[in-house]
Amino acid sequence: MTDVATNMRLKLPIICFILQIILIILFATLVQYDHDTDAAAWHNGNHTSESENDFYYRYPSFQDVHVMIFIGFGFLMTFLQRYGFSSVGFNFLIASFALQWATLMQGFFHGMHGGKIHIGVESMINADFCTGAVLISFGAVLGKTSPIQLLVMAMFEVTLFAVNEFILLSALGAKDAGGSMTIHTFGAYFGLMVTRVLYRPNLDKSKHRNSSVYHSDLFAMIGTIFLWMYWPSFNSAVTAHGDDQHRTAMNTYYSLAACTMATYGMSALTAHDGKLDMVHIQNAALAGGVAAGTAGEMMLTPYGSMIVGFLAGIISVLGFKFLTPILEEKLKIQDTCGVHNLHGMPGVLGAIVGAVTAAVATTDVYGKGMADVFPDVASGEIGASYQGVRQAISLAVTLGIALLGGLIVGFILKLPVFGAPSDAICYEDSIYWEVPGEEEAHDGQLTAVRTTETEKLNN
Amino acid sequence: MTDVATNMRLKLPIICFILQIILIILFATLVQYDHDTDAAAWHNGNHTSESENDFYYRYPSFQDVHVMIFIGFGFLMTFLQRYGFSSVGFNFLIASFALQWATLMQGFFHGMHGGKIHIGVESMINADFCTGAVLISFGAVLGKTSPIQLLVMAMFEVTLFAVNEFILLSALGAKDAGGSMTIHTFGAYFGLMVTRVLYRPNLDKSKHRNSSVYHSDLFAMIGTIFLWMYWPSFNSAVTAHGDDQHRTAMNTYYSLAACTMATYGMSALTAHDGKLDMVHIQNAALAGGVAAGTAGEMMLTPYGSMIVGFLAGIISVLGFKFLTPILEEKLKIQDTCGVHNLHGMPGVLGAIVGAVTAAVATTDVYGKGMADVFPDVASGEIGASYQGVRQAISLAVTLGIALLGGLIVGFILKLPVFGAPSDAICYEDSIYWEVPGEEEAHDGQLTAVRTTETEKLNN
Amino acid sequence: MTDVATNMRLKLPIICFILQIILIILFATLVQYDHDTDAAAWHNGNHTSESENDFYYRYPSFQDVHVMIFIGFGFLMTFLQRYGFSSVGFNFLIASFALQWATLMQGFFHGMHGGKIHIGVESMINADFCTGAVLISFGAVLGKTSPIQLLVMAMFEVTLFAVNEFILLSALGAKDAGGSMTIHTFGAYFGLMVTRVLYRPNLDKSKHRNSSVYHSDLFAMIGTIFLWMYWPSFNSAVTAHGDDQHRTAMNTYYSLAACTMATYGMSALTAHDGKLDMVHIQNAALAGGVAAGTAGEMMLTPYGSMIVGFLAGIISVLGFKFLTPILEEKLKIQDTCGVHNLHGMPGVLGAIVGAVTAAVATTDVYGKGMADVFPDVASGEIGASYQGVRQAISLAVTLGIALLGGLIVGFILKLPVFGAPSDAICYEDSIYWEVPGEEEAHDGQLTAVRTTETEKLNN
Repeated sequence: MTDVATNMRLKLPIICFILQIILIILFATLVQYDHDTDAAAWHNGNHTSESENDFYYRYPSFQDVHVMIFIGFGFLMTFLQRYGFSSVGFNFLIASFALQWATLMQGFFHGMHGGKIHIGVESMINADFCTGAVLISFGAVLGKTSPIQLLVMAMFEVTLFAVNEFILLSALGAKDAGGSMTIHTFGAYFGLMVTRVLYRPNLDKSKHRNSSVYHSDLFAMIGTIFLWMYWPSFNSAVTAHGDDQHRTAMNTYYSLAACTMATYGMSALTAHDGKLDMVHIQNAALAGGVAAGTAGEMMLTPYGSMIVGFLAGIISVLGFKFLTPILEEKLKIQDTCGVHNLHGMPGVLGAIVGAVTAAVATTDVYGKGMADVFPDVASGEIGASYQGVRQAISLAVTLGIALLGGLIVGFILKLPVFGAPSDAICYEDSIYWEVPGEEEAHDGQLTAVRTTETEKLNN
Repeated sequence: MTDVATNMRLKLPIICFILQIILIILFATLVQYDHDTDAAAWHNGNHTSESENDFYYRYPSFQDVHVMIFIGFGFLMTFLQRYGFSSVGFNFLIASFALQWATLMQGFFHGMHGGKIHIGVESMINADFCTGAVLISFGAVLGKTSPIQLLVMAMFEVTLFAVNEFILLSALGAKDAGGSMTIHTFGAYFGLMVTRVLYRPNLDKSKHRNSSVYHSDLFAMIGTIFLWMYWPSFNSAVTAHGDDQHRTAMNTYYSLAACTMATYGMSALTAHDGKLDMVHIQNAALAGGVAAGTAGEMMLTPYGSMIVGFLAGIISVLGFKFLTPILEEKLKIQDTCGVHNLHGMPGVLGAIVGAVTAAVATTDVYGKGMADVFPDVASGEIGASYQGVRQAISLAVTLGIALLGGLIVGFILKLPVFGAPSDAICYEDSIYWEVPGEEEAHDGQLTAVRTTETEKLNN
Repeated sequence: MTDVATNMRLKLPIICFILQIILIILFATLVQYDHDTDAAAWHNGNHTSESENDFYYRYPSFQDVHVMIFIGFGFLMTFLQRYGFSSVGFNFLIASFALQWATLMQGFFHGMHGGKIHIGVESMINADFCTGAVLISFGAVLGKTSPIQLLVMAMFEVTLFAVNEFILLSALGAKDAGGSMTIHTFGAYFGLMVTRVLYRPNLDKSKHRNSSVYHSDLFAMIGTIFLWMYWPSFNSAVTAHGDDQHRTAMNTYYSLAACTMATYGMSALTAHDGKLDMVHIQNAALAGGVAAGTAGEMMLTPYGSMIVGFLAGIISVLGFKFLTPILEEKLKIQDTCGVHNLHGMPGVLGAIVGAVTAAVATTDVYGKGMADVFPDVASGEIGASYQGVRQAISLAVTLGIALLGGLIVGFILKLPVFGAPSDAICYEDSIYWEVPGEEEAHDGQLTAVRTTETEKLNN
């Protein structure tokens, strides 16, 4: 391959090494073990049992979240026929960067103790959460960006995520344990704005690669199912110990089950000839997890969770069917994975459900548990309805920061130095990867089908 | 596609929406958070530490079980060359329905408190368990049913499962933590009777699709390995806290390891030219988990577990080799996945092992732990040998309810309104799914191989 | 197939059955439930809560390790185009044997209580760890050995592993919780020596099968990503409760993230035309976990972990690029998976980092936690620098035992009775497996491409 523009030989090593060295220097100067990870501090601490270490409360949830980030998001995006390496591989790269950078940015905003950022399993979960937002945005631009663009996007997006999260959770006092707003709404609208700015008028030239093949759809289902199964852990990972984690996981479980039922019904109703569409199953069935992200920790009730999931599934399939084509044709938003349908609208739905559920919270229902879910309501500082207002404002703030941030970052990514592929070679692994042949060796001869195409693309 | 009979455009949405709305109404009127998930109740409770919440004892096991249900069963069935979408996708659909319905049915029989069903992580595990039985039955009819038939089957099977479970665990006082009887024996014989009633005399017309291809066997191994790895969690998920969960997991671990050794040996011994057969490896290697489902929580000893697993593996391979053809030819039982070999016979073996192990239980061996495993023996109400009798009766009851239930439900499923495929288009995704081409785009042209066949089938 | 030499019809059943029966007899005479798994012992025990059972501290980590062993190693090796069945399948077989045998060998050396081996979740983790070493060696000989050779290798290697582990941890008093030395260095150099002894001068005849295809690389990424995600659990699985497990997991998390950044940078820098090479991504990105295996439990600091991972990634890619060809051409070491680059050199790096980190340990940094990490230093028996010397000696001992053991076992495996494939049919599933066609059925005709080749190979 001789295309200078997309050649990564020097660009990618330089950015990877510079970023990692900066990370190491900043970690060396700013980051410390927290009380539960530091040998001296923990052993000086006052705990009745080793089982009180936060590790045992959160590490299983962390690992489930970790699987969602790396297997879930990574394989969900392998549905494209010729972009499996990039989907899993760039997901892997930018997540590995983003989780480190997020540790610093989130720590800077709400983890400082005496000038140092203290880290442990909760900060690891939060870093993975922030990474999730970046990967949602990745879904919007999938197939159309270079790994360098993605790293640059991750750098800015993580920073803005941390700012938005700080405003919501610390300044406004909103609750959003599963991130309907901070993760899903933010990641989706940020990504949609980026892909709008990066609009490619001649993307039709790559249209034949912007679809799945039989096996690529099965690989994508690995991602879908892992996301679906572990979403209860995602939403409950950073809620308060005890009933809160327990309840959040259960609410999410029922929301997702109801969402799946709605998704299958809607897919058969809207798709061609009454057949099910893999795009819907792979994506819309997950909307129930997104929509339970804010209210999942609240006393949403199991049937309330099911209603939320059911609505999310319906909205999401309708979005894929009717809204995505409009976004592309009228608004010039080329949303490869349909993140608007999976994360955008369900995220907004989740934020609204959270606001309403908060507004009707009563001491009768929450008892002393109110202090865990709505501390300011429990302390009498504010009323429940005002908590609802906080939640609503938080949604507006999130949308604003995401759209404005995506706009600016989109223009940065347009700089011609980042090695983006041309319109004719989007959704194609062989731009950035050594790609082996598609067929196996027969009697010592490698069939040349794939190799030939690859060479053609490269010349 | 213009086949009216299998068209799902209205049928599937209607059944999905009606079922889900009924579920929501029943949940709204009947279901409540239990003590450990309710904010007020938990915070009024008397616990020394948040770590006493049942969430921390069982949630990691729940998630492992969840993976077995959705990835394990789903991908295990992707071995068919043209049925991967349906295997994973219908598994996903019917499991999402069944777990909600099971919450109600199981709650109705043994979770009522003051007229309400109380739910938490243990009920979630039990709902997933019940779903597992439905998925076993799905394996018997795989490739030959419409999604509507599967939902209808799930509705009835879950109900009968809950009845059988109530009789065994509550009325008879049997023990069956890992479900050798309640899940595996029940699910297998129920499904076998259903597939017998749905016998297709001209299934030979679809025979060329009832086999695997290279990559589909690898996808199936994802299912196998996840089932195998997490089976220790499955069997121990609802046993008593402490030594019981610990011991059950370990017994299952050794049973499975020994079973795998037996499976490889038997496969080479019985298969063509001494080569290993993927069907055996994918299925029989799991029989050790099934067979340890009842006795796993007992003081089976590690070597006892290994003997059980070893026998289960031998029986299972022999079943695939010699019994499955007989069942098909003589008894007209078309058992697509061979669930009789993986769940049926090993389930019966597990029930027998459980009866024997219970019958020989002594206070010398169990100490005060007897109260966890055999409470009625510990309290002096009955002797150990009588517990063994209970276990044996439970097996008979399970077989009776499964076979009778399967017979009745099979005839219900024969009603021509459910959109079953004809004999010539079984094991074929494109009946119910939009299926993309098999080959990738080459220079803008989609190779038409698959599309052509799909069109042919549809006309 | 009529090749008598590689026919497994009698050989494999005989070895599987004999080994398993020996295991059962030895377990029956030697193995008992430990305090936390025995019904009587646990209930007689003095514990304030069921949550004190070691199950709750370690079982989630055990399950993650279990996934690494069976999915991680198994699928990582599916990258070969025609060796997917064998990679996952032989991995499954030898791991099932090795974990049972390891229970006995490790128990014999450091789990005896009154003449009996006591087992529980910690012994299960250790057995899986030992199995990991065998699977690393499997990677070195992948594609070139029969399943019988692998079982024989496993039997000897597990034994030597246990000897080496005993010398390091018990006799020398070294620390190596994540096994940089005991698992990775040992497994790699043992396997490299075995493959050296089994050198095949005419392996070029199978060269066309010693490469990947597009989908096989995606299957391999499933293995890679699960290994990467769960490595924090691997390194922390048997460290002390509390801060130790917590800190080890976190150190590994950051080491891996930094390693991934280095791997991508180095891959683009060294590979053809600035493109990323899947071999590097699949393997070198994991080197950060290997290199944090010894020092992960120490107060390595997060940035220290990142430096270690960063170096490991660089070394590993350079090894693939420059060292592997030299090893093959000059030293006649045919290392199929490049275990020298993923486990060998990063394992040695991890051992050195561990020695240095131990040598600079101070009470100031560790506080009372010193007793968990370096008990002999805490008790004043030795100084920290001497602990560093212990670590360094341990590396030398490990290298010696691995190389000498691999040499001897390699010669044993050369015995012509074990059914090894000839040089012309390496990396080929159809020698030991019934392999289905590659293409799906079209209108009832199975395309004969694969079948033809398979027949040709067999004649």
